[in-house]
Amino acid sequence: MSDSLFRPKSVAVIGASSKELHIGNRVIKNLLDFGFKGSIYPVNPKADEIRGIKAYKSIMEVPEKDGIDVVHMVIPAKFVPAAVDDCGKKGVKNIIINSGGFKEIGPKGEAIEKDFLERAKKYGIRIFGPNCQGIINSDPDIRAYCNFTFTKPDPGHISITALSGGVAEVIHQAFSQMGVGTRIYASNGNACDITIPEIVRYLGDDEETRTIVLYVEGLRDAATFLEVAKEVAAKKPVLAMKAGRTEVGAKAASSHTGGLAEVDIATELIFKKAGILSFRDEAELCQAAVAFASQPIPKGNRVGIITNTGGPAVIATDVFGDKGLEIPSLSDRGIETLKEKVFPEAAVGNPTDLLATGLAEHYRTAMDVMMDEETIDSVFINFVTPFFVDTDAIAREIAEVSKQKRKPIVCNLMTDPQQWTETVRILKEGGVPCFGFPGEAARSLAALVRYNDIRSRDIGEVTIYDDVDKARAEAILEKARGREILSATEVYEILAAYKITVADWRMADNAQEAEKAAVEIGFPVVVKADAESIVHKSDMGGVAVNLADGDAVRSAAEEMEKRLNADDLKFFIQKYMPGGKEVIIGAKAEEGLGHLIMFGLGGIYVEVLKDVVFNLTPVTKYEAEEMLSSIKAAPLLKGVRGEKGVYEAGLVETLQRLSQLVTDLPAIQEMDLNPVIAYEDNVFVVDARIAI
Amino acid sequence: MSDSLFRPKSVAVIGASSKELHIGNRVIKNLLDFGFKGSIYPVNPKADEIRGIKAYKSIMEVPEKDGIDVVHMVIPAKFVPAAVDDCGKKGVKNIIINSGGFKEIGPKGEAIEKDFLERAKKYGIRIFGPNCQGIINSDPDIRAYCNFTFTKPDPGHISITALSGGVAEVIHQAFSQMGVGTRIYASNGNACDITIPEIVRYLGDDEETRTIVLYVEGLRDAATFLEVAKEVAAKKPVLAMKAGRTEVGAKAASSHTGGLAEVDIATELIFKKAGILSFRDEAELCQAAVAFASQPIPKGNRVGIITNTGGPAVIATDVFGDKGLEIPSLSDRGIETLKEKVFPEAAVGNPTDLLATGLAEHYRTAMDVMMDEETIDSVFINFVTPFFVDTDAIAREIAEVSKQKRKPIVCNLMTDPQQWTETVRILKEGGVPCFGFPGEAARSLAALVRYNDIRSRDIGEVTIYDDVDKARAEAILEKARGREILSATEVYEILAAYKITVADWRMADNAQEAEKAAVEIGFPVVVKADAESIVHKSDMGGVAVNLADGDAVRSAAEEMEKRLNADDLKFFIQKYMPGGKEVIIGAKAEEGLGHLIMFGLGGIYVEVLKDVVFNLTPVTKYEAEEMLSSIKAAPLLKGVRGEKGVYEAGLVETLQRLSQLVTDLPAIQEMDLNPVIAYEDNVFVVDARIAI
Repeated sequence: MSDSLFRPKSVAVIGASSKELHIGNRVIKNLLDFGFKGSIYPVNPKADEIRGIKAYKSIMEVPEKDGIDVVHMVIPAKFVPAAVDDCGKKGVKNIIINSGGFKEIGPKGEAIEKDFLERAKKYGIRIFGPNCQGIINSDPDIRAYCNFTFTKPDPGHISITALSGGVAEVIHQAFSQMGVGTRIYASNGNACDITIPEIVRYLGDDEETRTIVLYVEGLRDAATFLEVAKEVAAKKPVLAMKAGRTEVGAKAASSHTGGLAEVDIATELIFKKAGILSFRDEAELCQAAVAFASQPIPKGNRVGIITNTGGPAVIATDVFGDKGLEIPSLSDRGIETLKEKVFPEAAVGNPTDLLATGLAEHYRTAMDVMMDEETIDSVFINFVTPFFVDTDAIAREIAEVSKQKRKPIVCNLMTDPQQWTETVRILKEGGVPCFGFPGEAARSLAALVRYNDIRSRDIGEVTIYDDVDKARAEAILEKARGREILSATEVYEILAAYKITVADWRMADNAQEAEKAAVEIGFPVVVKADAESIVHKSDMGGVAVNLADGDAVRSAAEEMEKRLNADDLKFFIQKYMPGGKEVIIGAKAEEGLGHLIMFGLGGIYVEVLKDVVFNLTPVTKYEAEEMLSSIKAAPLLKGVRGEKGVYEAGLVETLQRLSQLVTDLPAIQEMDLNPVIAYEDNVFVVDARIAI
Repeated sequence: MSDSLFRPKSVAVIGASSKELHIGNRVIKNLLDFGFKGSIYPVNPKADEIRGIKAYKSIMEVPEKDGIDVVHMVIPAKFVPAAVDDCGKKGVKNIIINSGGFKEIGPKGEAIEKDFLERAKKYGIRIFGPNCQGIINSDPDIRAYCNFTFTKPDPGHISITALSGGVAEVIHQAFSQMGVGTRIYASNGNACDITIPEIVRYLGDDEETRTIVLYVEGLRDAATFLEVAKEVAAKKPVLAMKAGRTEVGAKAASSHTGGLAEVDIATELIFKKAGILSFRDEAELCQAAVAFASQPIPKGNRVGIITNTGGPAVIATDVFGDKGLEIPSLSDRGIETLKEKVFPEAAVGNPTDLLATGLAEHYRTAMDVMMDEETIDSVFINFVTPFFVDTDAIAREIAEVSKQKRKPIVCNLMTDPQQWTETVRILKEGGVPCFGFPGEAARSLAALVRYNDIRSRDIGEVTIYDDVDKARAEAILEKARGREILSATEVYEILAAYKITVADWRMADNAQEAEKAAVEIGFPVVVKADAESIVHKSDMGGVAVNLADGDAVRSAAEEMEKRLNADDLKFFIQKYMPGGKEVIIGAKAEEGLGHLIMFGLGGIYVEVLKDVVFNLTPVTKYEAEEMLSSIKAAPLLKGVRGEKGVYEAGLVETLQRLSQLVTDLPAIQEMDLNPVIAYEDNVFVVDARIAI
């Protein structure tokens, strides 16, 4: 995908129509109204002109020698394959298929989609869509409105992409109504060829795009997305939202995308891994994007507040409190400067309340002080526009300080935009992000801070343990091929191959050997029945714990032999580990992405409080430590009420070794280390399960 | 406070000014611009007229015989007391003091405030403010804009009140910008006389006010507020927000109100007790109010979704999922009707996606089906306005069904209001709540559902236990007067008086008696040192648990005698209660409100996970049960992992008895039952503390 799609010099419309309410007419109107800088070629077998532009009987007749950059297709699905052939012969570079009737309607449409896509590939044509809105580029040199929607953006620095035209349009309208421009807009519907990652990469390379806004309901090629997103997010802020988070939401998403109704947590983890700023609310996302488009990223979480009315600053401060931002005191010097220059009744400090009567020079002093304060990273302004002060002058000062780009400024502007038109204009043209609600403004500023946190988070390199025996583990898996669940011996041998510490264990074929094994291990021990036919060991009386001597072991094993009556019955004897903290560590394969790794405290913490965290492989030491500290019950690992803490370094190493294990052995579908018992100075896996 | 303030027939302005930028001029301009139906009397010793209206040298000269309804005072603070005297002589009913310079600036201003208030009381004048904006009444018969702000509302059904002028104005502007009218607006600044509860009561009685929006940073007279709010909230929805929720927020609030920097949870509990719908975000509050102003309250949480674009419905559904709303399937009959009448490619069900090409009659059919479905309580509509359908016709159908008021309708309208002016107008005039973001629309609908939950919640009557011995408890407290902490004997006797079950106990004066007491109780026992000088018993080695026989008790007590060396040392002997679940129950006096009652699981659940809930006395059985089920670890009370549940009815009774106890004995400042041990069929307090 190249500039030919987003910076087209020529656009033809196959299915151009004389009827005003037809998309094939609207696209031409939009190109004209938006002032497209290239050539427009309506294609219609019957019309001579459309909207005053000469029309051509067929694409072949279009007088464009170097090939046409973009062709819109607004014709019934069944005619698309042949039309693609024509485009191929004509040397067309990109086709935006606005028409529907393809994969989204079922197998019949899917077959047509496959058909035209094969033809397009033969000719090297890239397809955008089908069943899509198209693209918009507001670059003054281009002015391409290759789209049938109705929101005409001002040039700007935020670019938008989403498969869903509806949500892309919601976002686009929001920027328009906030008076903020858009750079590039791309909504690619079925996305049979050109993908979201490709678009994101293009936007990453587009210099005038300062912020990318992305909406997804799931990721088709998660691995590619992650790779591209990492690369692009390193260059500029990518703000994203994933819908279908909840069970009902996922069901709704699946009904309109034809996907599976499954709440996926992987997308959020991918966002995190890529350094994408994730949002759960589209309004918050759009409002944050406005701040990103013009403001620098703060270096920390300390906010200075300037207000000319009390209450809204309190609301903003609550939001800061919720988001972990700080409102530090000002230096003595800063306070002195303020006291000298603002009204004596003003409240000087952080917040500084200049009063409704506060003048432009007071705002300027307060902003200058905040910009100079070493302990302040960003500035939040509440600005109500009383009729008795020169609000234009205040706006000019705010715009001027904002343009210095020393620290971000976000403004809660409380005004009637119909009356205070000039004040609003000055702030808008000065690039000051303004919001009517204090909470909106505060959340936008908090998003800038969160972005700084994300980007300054260095997860480090993945530790590669070279003391592992990958070949041995692979051999065990190879031998187990065809089965779904590995035997205890297999599981423990794989753990041993990756030096994941387990409580000492032996296998025994019968009760007598079980006793012998127990003696070797040392008492007390646990005895577990092991046979392919026994899945729920403890439910079937196949587990006996805390056996204190050989007699107890032998009689427990004999008891199980009688009760379970399985031909392939063996016994798994393991050191019994009392005390310690129960922990659960797990892994689950994610198509194309590696594995999800899970960590949590065992028992009620997992079952009742659902207190678990996830990450994607590979997990670095930093990330493993972050997992430990992210659970709500994290203080329990450190030790509370006089208890000693557990060996966190051992848990961190176990997480990293498990990450390496499942990465080396992608055949593993699910793996549970449950429980892992963590003591003050060591960690033992005492039960484990592997599914392939 | 009567109609004379909110429906004035005459308004005089003391401090009326010829200078355009003076508040004393602006108030007159606002009254004129807004079309005030009564008389306006500028008072200015030097001017003959102001803004074309005859001015008077003094209030005494104003030709109003029956007394003036409202006087604005826009004069320096020091002149206010004398001016109040003049008003008294003139028979003025209400004074809105816009000027500042009173309590908010410190002791000097506070003295002036006290002075003029005494004078006003003498004459029976009510004071609104000082340091306030004033009131607005948009009633077409009144049109009173007694306020110096700039937002001119359309007549409407939402009324707004807040001390904070800044936040009241934010809310007011929001309604104005959403194209929704306001009924009455009242921002009373320092509120030295007319209070928020008085205003709320007036709004409750005002028939045209359908929804009351309230913002507070704390409550001054919480008991009166609760009483009034209960009464008013029973008549119409009261939507409220309390700022200063967070530690930093509380600090910011205290800096501009001069209050204490303390995070108060009581206000939220008062809202709950009064049946007020509480919000944490002012935008969400305003958007919800728009839905309340025109839509009926749904009877349940089941939403029907109609859309003409997929993605936004997914976003809305996520919000519904978060808020506990359901998206039930439609009946076969409903589905059949839809299939007959909408496009064959449309997705029929819940959500029903009519496609962007969906017509007005399709929307109508879908709405009619949803209105008829017994399993649907409310309807959510996503409506994007494509150019190729008659969106005005769709809007007309939505407005018509909305007017039926069978079930609430909330609409996510995705459009450009500059282009689709007629569509927007039809929806607005039809009273359809429309929001640009799907999440906003969904949250507004969810607020209607939450309101139904709150209003249909019947907390029942307070149980009054008549087996308690209030007199005995009072006598103990009387005897303890002057001390802060009660002795163990006193605490246990008070518990006994209120039949709160405690583990069997005795007091003993020395080691020998301790042994004797232990034998009476039965082993094992706990021995605790009890002396006024010993606060942290366990830290000082004053606690010995699980003593199995008389020897152990005697030697433990002797040991303590030696170690603690306190003259007033006694021993508290109690049955040792192993096993069971540790629970914490507490009470804390709240000025003017009774007590906060706390409940939580003990140990790490309180200390690490902060998993506690609060309520205000008196606590009914329903509320006590709700407290038990509201903690995150609630399943532990029911029993998990094969454990049996605890005696919840016993805990519920303990909460109710404690509620009665602290209500009967208001001298109790703090009371902790910690821990209470809950077993399968009984509950025992094993340690308790009372501070007076």
